This record gives sequence, C-alpha cells and structure tokens, in this order.
Amino acid sequence: MAEYPASRLAERACRVEPFHVMRLLGRARELEASGRSIVHLEVGEPDFPTPEPILAAGRAALDAGLTHYTPAAGLPALRQAIAAHYGQRHGVDVDPARVLVTPGASGALQLVFSVRLEPGDRVILGDPSYPCYRQILGLMGAELVAVPLGPETGYRLTPERLDAAWVPGTRAVVVASPANPTGAVTGLDELRALHAICRARGAALIVDEIYRGLTYDVPDTTALALALAVEDLYVIDSFSKYFGMTGWRVGWVVGPEEAVAVMDRLAQNLFIAANTPAQQAALAAFAPETTAVLEQRRAIFQQRRDRLLPALRALGFGLSGAPDGAFYLYARLPEWLEMDSMDFATRLLEDAGVALTPGQDFGTHECDRHVRLAYTRDFEVLDEGVRRIGEFLADCGSTKKKPQV
Amino acid sequence: MAEYPASRLAERACRVEPFHVMRLLGRARELEASGRSIVHLEVGEPDFPTPEPILAAGRAALDAGLTHYTPAAGLPALRQAIAAHYGQRHGVDVDPARVLVTPGASGALQLVFSVRLEPGDRVILGDPSYPCYRQILGLMGAELVAVPLGPETGYRLTPERLDAAWVPGTRAVVVASPANPTGAVTGLDELRALHAICRARGAALIVDEIYRGLTYDVPDTTALALALAVEDLYVIDSFSKYFGMTGWRVGWVVGPEEAVAVMDRLAQNLFIAANTPAQQAALAAFAPETTAVLEQRRAIFQQRRDRLLPALRALGFGLSGAPDGAFYLYARLPEWLEMDSMDFATRLLEDAGVALTPGQDFGTHECDRHVRLAYTRDFEVLDEGVRRIGEFLADCGSTKKKPQV
Repeated sequence: MAEYPASRLAERACRVEPFHVMRLLGRARELEASGRSIVHLEVGEPDFPTPEPILAAGRAALDAGLTHYTPAAGLPALRQAIAAHYGQRHGVDVDPARVLVTPGASGALQLVFSVRLEPGDRVILGDPSYPCYRQILGLMGAELVAVPLGPETGYRLTPERLDAAWVPGTRAVVVASPANPTGAVTGLDELRALHAICRARGAALIVDEIYRGLTYDVPDTTALALALAVEDLYVIDSFSKYFGMTGWRVGWVVGPEEAVAVMDRLAQNLFIAANTPAQQAALAAFAPETTAVLEQRRAIFQQRRDRLLPALRALGFGLSGAPDGAFYLYARLPEWLEMDSMDFATRLLEDAGVALTPGQDFGTHECDRHVRLAYTRDFEVLDEGVRRIGEFLADCGSTKKKPQV
Repeated sequence: MAEYPASRLAERACRVEPFHVMRLLGRARELEASGRSIVHLEVGEPDFPTPEPILAAGRAALDAGLTHYTPAAGLPALRQAIAAHYGQRHGVDVDPARVLVTPGASGALQLVFSVRLEPGDRVILGDPSYPCYRQILGLMGAELVAVPLGPETGYRLTPERLDAAWVPGTRAVVVASPANPTGAVTGLDELRALHAICRARGAALIVDEIYRGLTYDVPDTTALALALAVEDLYVIDSFSKYFGMTGWRVGWVVGPEEAVAVMDRLAQNLFIAANTPAQQAALAAFAPETTAVLEQRRAIFQQRRDRLLPALRALGFGLSGAPDGAFYLYARLPEWLEMDSMDFATRLLEDAGVALTPGQDFGTHECDRHVRLAYTRDFEVLDEGVRRIGEFLADCGSTKKKPQV
C-alpha cells in the first residue's frame, strides 16, 4: 500500500492535526507494556465510574429491549428531563422543544457550527481552547480568529477583548465556561455583555458548558440564565464530565427554536440519533441519588485541585490563581527551564514516566510554555506525579539539560 | 421567538430537506394517539429486538464499568473481531488496521466523504438511493451526479451506466449493495468492473454494505473480496440491520491504510469515539449463537418478502423481480392510479391507516410513481396492510379519486 498516493486524499481532511497528546498516550502505553510505571495526568476523563443509578437505568433499558432508534432530536422524555433540570438546578425556564439530544457534545458542535456558518465565515474563539473547535471549524471552511488569553483576564474572553478582536464577517463567537484547558469560568454578567456584542453585530454566541457542574468557590451557572438568552444563543452541554458518562456519548444543545428545527434535520442525516440505551440511562442522571454521588465527586475534584496546585507552584510552575472549574491546571513551565512544552512533555514521559498534555494541543499563544495537567486521579497518583516531576526538574536544573535536536 | 430571522441560519444547512417519511410518521403517531390503528410499513428498522447474546454482552460491560472513552478508531478487540469476521464469513483477509469503528454507518459516511472530497468535487450515485448520501454530500459542498436507475438494469448502477454518466471532476462513486430502497444486489464481477473504472479515472469507489447479510437467493458477498480491493475502495458497514443493533449506533469503515489514519484524526475531532458499551456489546455480534439467531431472522425476512411481493403485484403494483437483499420493496404505483406517490402515501395513511415511504425521499427519477414498503413486520401486519391498501385502491378505482389540490 506504500504506493497509494496520499495526494488523492482531501486537503481539508489531511489538514486536521493529530492531537499531540494522542502520540504521547500511545508512547505511554508502549512504555507500560514494557513494564514501566506511568502516572497519567493527561487524561480529560474522570477516573470515577458512571454512577450506579445511571448504570442501573442502562441495564433496565437493555432488559426492556429498548434498543431501537429514537427520534433524531432525542427521546422526548430526555429532552423534557434536561429542560426540567435547568429549572431545578438553575431556576431557568427552558422549553423542551429547544433541547436537542446529540451524540456527545461533539455532535452538538457539528450541528451548531453547521446551522450558523457558511464557508468563509469568521469565528472568534480563545487561544488556548479545546482543539476540536478549530478542527471542526476548519473542516467546514470557517476562518478562525484566535484571541490570545492569559492570566491578565483570568484566561477569559472579556467583552473588551472580544470587541477589540472583532473583524468583518464574524458570524459566531465560541466561549467555553468552565474552559478547557484553563478551568476559567465566565460569569453571567460577562456572558451578558458578550451576548450583547454578538447580538448587535449579527453573530451567534456559542457557549460550551460541558464542564458545567464542575465549579469550585464560584456559583454554578448557565448562559441560559441570561435574560435575553433566546436569540443567537446556543448552549452546548453533555453528560460526559459532571455526570460521569464519557463513553456513553450523549450531549445536547439548547438553541433558538427555528435553529433546532434545522439542526433536527441535520441530525437525521448526520447521526440518525444518539445511542438509545445511553439516552435511557441518562434519564437517571438527574435523580437525587445520582446528584448526591456527583456532588460528592465535585468536592473530591476540588480537594485534588487544592492539593495539586500548591505542589506545582512549589516546583516553580506559573499558576496565576486557582481555576474555578473543570478538572485541569494550565501551568506555565518554570521560567528557568530551557525547553519548550512539547520537549518537556516528551522527556518527562520518557525519563520520569509522567504523561501530561503539551500546550501545543490548545493553540499557539504561549502554548510552548504551558502544559495541561488533569486532576482526574486520586491523591496518591497526583502526589507521585508531583514527586516525579520534581525529580525531573531537579535533574534538569543540575545538568542544565538542553532540548534535544 | 417568531421574530427570529431565519435568514441568519446557514443556507447550506437550511437546504437539508426533511424526510417526507418523518412527516408521515409524525402524522401516524397523531392518528394512533387519537385511537386509530396504523399499519407501519415505512420503518427501515427490523421489528426484532437485539439478539440476547449481544444484550448480555452489553449488560456485562455495564457490570464491569466499561463506560470510559475508547480510542477514536474503536476498541482494538472490536476492530480485530470485524476483520476476523470477514475472514470467517467471506474468506477475505482484512488487516484490522484498515478497520475503523464509527458511530453508525452515518459516521462512516461522514468520514469517507470528508477524507476523499474537496468542495466542488463531483460524486456519482444512483437515483433512487438512500437520502442521507445526498444531504451529507450537499452539506460538504460536493456536486451530485444522479444516475437514473430502473428495472432495465435491475436497479443497479452497471459499468455501462457509470461510464456513460462520468463527468470531469468525478472523485467518488457511491454504490449500495444491497441497496435501499430497491433491495438491488450488485455482484462481485460488476463491482470489479465499477472499481476498475474508478481506479482508472482517479475516483474512489464507496460501497455501502449496511444491508450485507440480508440477501436472499444470491451469495452473501462483500466488495472486500475484490482482488485489487485495497486502493480507492471504501467499504461501509454497520451492526444496525443484519445484526439487529439499530439504536446502538455502531458501524465501521474499511479503507486504505493511509486514509484510515486521516479518518482516525477526523473521528477524534468529530466524534471522540463510538459509544463504549455498544462496542463491547458488538463484540458478541459474531458469536456462533448470535449468528444462529440472525440466520433464522434472515429466513423470516425472505418469507416476508415472498409473502408481500405477490400480494402487491396482485393489487397492480409494478415490481420487476424479487429484490435480492435488504428488507424493502420499491413498488411502482398501479398505472391506472391518478395520483403521485406523495399523494398516495398521504391519503393511504389518512384514509386506510397504512404508513409507507413515498419515492420522493429517495431521489427524483420516477420517484413520484414509486413507494417503498418495508417488510420489517410479521405476516399478520403485512397481510393487514395489503388488505387495507387493496380496499383503498378499490375505493380509488370506483370513485376515480383525483389528487387533492
């Protein structure tokens, strides 16, 4: 097959970059297979299993033979449950007709981008941010306007930054709150101001809330609580993170009713529907006994954050403040360290057996000086990771290792 | 929300047409809610539940807490099992590295079209054919070249037809075998000739085999059995139809290794991965005890076909020959009937309580004279459907009903 001309593959597809972390993860697995111990701090997935009430609902769905297609927009009962959940948790009145269940938030991103963007339209988003935004938008022919985010705004796309970055042809703005990889949370007042700017200029505000529920010290909010939140506002969410259902691939989007009708037709063609047993299982995600488990886990994530953060600071990593949400620390490499984050991640894995995600996966703005660490593992693992990173840095400091060419 | 300007939605998204059958299905549910009995012959989904061994594997996955993400390309064990299945069932040697597990065949279609097509590239496909091809390709900016298919070629895209239809800029040809809505099966010799034409002209041959296994009177084959099948050949398949796993949303694609590598990166971004418990469950789809159930069901489908087909012919429907595969009859309306298929489907539902799919969902070529009937229900339902259709036609014949304006 070596003679297969790669040029025959579509250019826009080949432009899609692999995640660097996947290469590192592959290498980590090789090392593990050879007997090495690896501390995994790269994984954007909680170590907790899916809560038992959700598993039980999944089993019950299988027992009842609920394995046929659902409507493309999702099980009516699940759309209602999601709408009711906004009422119960956030006091926000959401019409179930505006909720569309999708195969993960990934599916929701595809639908929202498809329903709002023509080829060549511009989209403003933060740098660093979740890499799939850029890749999906690139596949669709959208032009990206990346706004550098740093500690000076708490890694938030502020209204001032958005205004300054605005260019003609901007048709959408993507904000994640809590954000990956920074954990930054954008408050309601700021969201309102961002939404007003978008509204005034004919662009959609797309708020990715897939880490909603995983906030610490700050209120747990949703952009749907904005007073004028119906028009030009799309909120994407998922059962993956807070609800502990990563592998089940069920997410949703709340959008304007007319857009939901078009997205429903898109979903019929692109997905047919989300997995049926998973949708049935998700019906148990809002039950009080599930919430009790999830809130306990939230407290544990906060403890992990509060354990990892000072330990990294003590090693010389730059961390402006405790991030308010998600389960990541986006840490600046110690200033004295003479290697970029890709080098650091590669050599840390090889020499010390710690896997983390280099900043290069999230954008270009100072990404070569940052790494992302996930606090999705227990204290013992976090402590061992810190110990190994410390040893690696001490070794670097004493030998003044240079980047390998 | 009525004031929301629909013009702000993307034109390419709004162009995606709703399936007419969805409107009919919605109306059917309304009628059922009001107490009417409806015979469902419109549904492209077997009435059988997922086979018990697959359900058991799904339950076992939940019990074992296997609910985290899998690699984007799918569980390694499932890729291996799919590859081995081709060996066992068809004597074809497939490298697991060429198998990529997707969220249903829908996901596979997206990946294959994305990896091979630039905007403006032309794609040749049959008319009638599965409507999602056209919609997904339209979303991606591909130009469609629809080749009218009729009984004169057994509803198959023959090498002669393909050659005659070829236009500059053709980069892909889509063939479904067995086909929806016609049930036509394209044999290996014909596939070889189609592939040779595509190869010689630098286009990919994409063979949709999601009804593979559901063939009657003819050999059960796969395009992967072609001798030169590696390059420019993409085979799409699914656990939905033969394996009875529609709602689980797991499919796959077998492609050239280089293309699979790019599709893997696309899948990371577009899907993350297919549902994990569903992939675990699918591991049981190839077990001998599952095959025993599935082969029994195949025999039942054949009996249903052989029951419905002569009954429809007796009512004056045009059916050139018994379709060799899938579970559909694509029937020409009786020549004397003075209404088009959309009218027929609508009035048959309202007056006689029978739901079927108008040809308009599958293309434009004589679609207004055809309807699709699915033999996914048992004899009793099929017989009742035939009885009602007969009464409706008799009524039309006696009163010479005209189409409503």
